[in-house]
Amino acid sequence: MQISPLSRTLTAALQEKIDQKTKPPGSLGRLEAIALQAGLIQQTLEPAIVQPTIAVFAGDHGIAAEGLVNPYPQAVTAQMVYNFLQGGAAINAMCRQLQVELVIVDAGVNHSFPAHARLNDRKIGYGTRNYLHEPAMSPEQCEKAMEAGAEIVQYIHQQGCNTIGFGEMGIGNTASASLLMSCFTGLPITDCTGAGTGGTPQQVARKTVILQEALNRHGMPADAMTTLATYGGFEIAMLCGAILQAAALGMIVVIDGFIVTAALLAAHRLQPAVTDYCIFSHCSHEKGHRAMLQHLQVAPLLQLDMRLGEGTGAAMAMPVIQCATAFLQHMASFADAQVSTKNEV
Amino acid sequence: MQISPLSRTLTAALQEKIDQKTKPPGSLGRLEAIALQAGLIQQTLEPAIVQPTIAVFAGDHGIAAEGLVNPYPQAVTAQMVYNFLQGGAAINAMCRQLQVELVIVDAGVNHSFPAHARLNDRKIGYGTRNYLHEPAMSPEQCEKAMEAGAEIVQYIHQQGCNTIGFGEMGIGNTASASLLMSCFTGLPITDCTGAGTGGTPQQVARKTVILQEALNRHGMPADAMTTLATYGGFEIAMLCGAILQAAALGMIVVIDGFIVTAALLAAHRLQPAVTDYCIFSHCSHEKGHRAMLQHLQVAPLLQLDMRLGEGTGAAMAMPVIQCATAFLQHMASFADAQVSTKNEV
Repeated sequence: MQISPLSRTLTAALQEKIDQKTKPPGSLGRLEAIALQAGLIQQTLEPAIVQPTIAVFAGDHGIAAEGLVNPYPQAVTAQMVYNFLQGGAAINAMCRQLQVELVIVDAGVNHSFPAHARLNDRKIGYGTRNYLHEPAMSPEQCEKAMEAGAEIVQYIHQQGCNTIGFGEMGIGNTASASLLMSCFTGLPITDCTGAGTGGTPQQVARKTVILQEALNRHGMPADAMTTLATYGGFEIAMLCGAILQAAALGMIVVIDGFIVTAALLAAHRLQPAVTDYCIFSHCSHEKGHRAMLQHLQVAPLLQLDMRLGEGTGAAMAMPVIQCATAFLQHMASFADAQVSTKNEV
Repeated sequence: MQISPLSRTLTAALQEKIDQKTKPPGSLGRLEAIALQAGLIQQTLEPAIVQPTIAVFAGDHGIAAEGLVNPYPQAVTAQMVYNFLQGGAAINAMCRQLQVELVIVDAGVNHSFPAHARLNDRKIGYGTRNYLHEPAMSPEQCEKAMEAGAEIVQYIHQQGCNTIGFGEMGIGNTASASLLMSCFTGLPITDCTGAGTGGTPQQVARKTVILQEALNRHGMPADAMTTLATYGGFEIAMLCGAILQAAALGMIVVIDGFIVTAALLAAHRLQPAVTDYCIFSHCSHEKGHRAMLQHLQVAPLLQLDMRLGEGTGAAMAMPVIQCATAFLQHMASFADAQVSTKNEV
C-alpha cells in the first residue's frame, strides 16, 4: 500500500470557486480550508460527504489487568462494548442525533461475546500482554490487526461511505498511547502522560513511573511496526491499519482524540502522506493530545474539553465537515445571485 | 417584561443524572455544561431541542450610505436578502444541511421588496440615519424595532420552537456594533473596531477615526435605550427585543458573532439575567468579539475563525447543543448498562 500526497492540481480552481461564493473572502474560516481539502481528497470541485461513518475499535491491555494505570477495572471494556451494541453509550447518542453510521469492532477484548449482528468480530486475542514484562503483541499479531483494520475500512467503503471517523474503547489505552507518543515524538514520558479516564494526580504520577519502567525495559524501537507491537494495543494497531487503508482509498479520515492520534502517529511514520487525508476533529482535554497535534503540525477543529474517546470528537466534527462541503456545493456565487463584490463599489 | 435568573432547583438532580451516564465524570466537557444549562432553562431533567430555528434580521445603516466604513456598497444588504430568499447564502446551505428552520426579517433595508412568502416584513425605515450627524434612530423607532423583534419570537415560539439562534445582515453594521461595544463595555473604540467584511488596515484606521467622531458628537448615553437608538441599527434593536423575548419565554438563545453579541450587550444592560438563557455559539474572527465575550464573562463553544454573520456561527453550534441534550436524554446510566464505576474497582 502506497499513500500518495494529495494532488494539488485543483487547488486554484477550488479556491476560485470558494472565493466566488456570496460571502466576504475567507469569512467562513476553517470551513473554507476543509472544503478545499475535501475537494482535493475527492479530486472534484463538488466534494460531498456520503454515508459518514464512525468505526469504534475495542481492545484490552495487559497492563490494565494489573490495575496499575486506570481507575476503572478491565471488565469495563467488555461492558462498554455491550453498551455500544445496546445503543446506550455517548457515541450511540451522538451518531443517532447526527445521522452518522456506527460500526463496532472487537479488536481484542478480554471477553467472549456471543455473536451479535452489530458486532464485528476481529478479535486478535484476549487482551495484549503486559509491556512491563514483554512486548504487548507479537509482530504477527500486530500485522494481523493492521490487516483487519484495513479490511473493515474496505468493506465500509464498498458500502458507499466516503468519510470515516475513528474511535476506540479500551481500559488502559491512554497508557499505551502515551508510550507510542513518547516513541514517535521523542518527548519525555512525563509530557505524554495524563489522567486518562480520570486518575488522581497520585495515580497519574504512578502511571508515569510505570510507563517509564516499560520504556527502560524495551527502549525506543527504530521502526514503527516494532514500536506499535511493543507498546500498542490491538485496537490501536487495527486503527493504524484502518487509517492507512482509508487514506489509500481516498476517503476523508476524521481523527478523534489522544488514542486515535497515537495510532495515526504510527501510520504517519509508515506513510507520511496519510495526514493529507485527515481532518483533526478536536483537541482532547487529555494531556499530551495538544503536543501530538503540534508534532504533526495540524490544528484541531473543535475544543470542547472532551476526553471520552469512542470517536465522540470525530462525531462532533461531522456536521462542520458536512457544512463545509454543503456551502461549496450549494451556495450561490456573486454572479448567480447578482450580488455586488468589493470591486464594484 | 421581566427576565428571571434561572432557578437552580434542579442543578443537583441534573448533575447527578449527568454523572451517572456511562462515561468518566466530566468527560463530555462543554457538552455537560450545556446539558445542565438546557435542563435549567427548560426546568426538566429531560431537556430537548425542538424545531431549532435561526432568525436573521437585515437592516441598512446611514453611515454606510456614505461609503465610509465598508468595502461593499449598501446595495449588498438588499441583494443578500434576495439571496436568502432564493436559498443561496451560507446560512441557507447550513440550515438545510443541519435541518434548522430559517426565518428572514426585513428590519429596515434600504429597498422595497415585493411581498414574498419567506420574507417577514417588519421594516422600520429605509435604513437608519447617519450617526455622524444625528442619532441613528428616534426613540420611537428603537422601541418599535424592539417590539417587532419580540413579536417575531413570540410567533416562532408559538409554532413549537424552543431553541432560537440569531443572525443579521447589514452593510455597515460592524461599525454600529463597535460603537455599542464601546458604550456598553467602556473599552476605547480602537479596541472595538475591526475589519468587518474585510477592510484593509487603512480602511480600518479610517473607520476607527469616523467612529471616534461619532462618539465625540453624541457621547455615551447613560441608558441602554438611548445608546441603542443613537448608535444602533434597526436590525440590532430588533435583535435586542427578540433576544429579550426569547429569554422571557424560557427559550434557549443561541448567540452568533460580533453584531448579535452587541445587541445582547444592550439586552444585558436592560435585563442582566438574559445571559442565563444564552449559549455563545462561537468566537468570531472579528476583532472585538473576544473582548465582548470576556466582558460578559462567557466562553464561546466554537472557534472556527468565521466572521460571516447571518447566524452562521449559531447554526454551527446547533448540532453541539443537540448532542448535549441527546446524551442526557438517551445515554444509559452505569446502572442501566451494568457498567462498573470507579468505586467498584
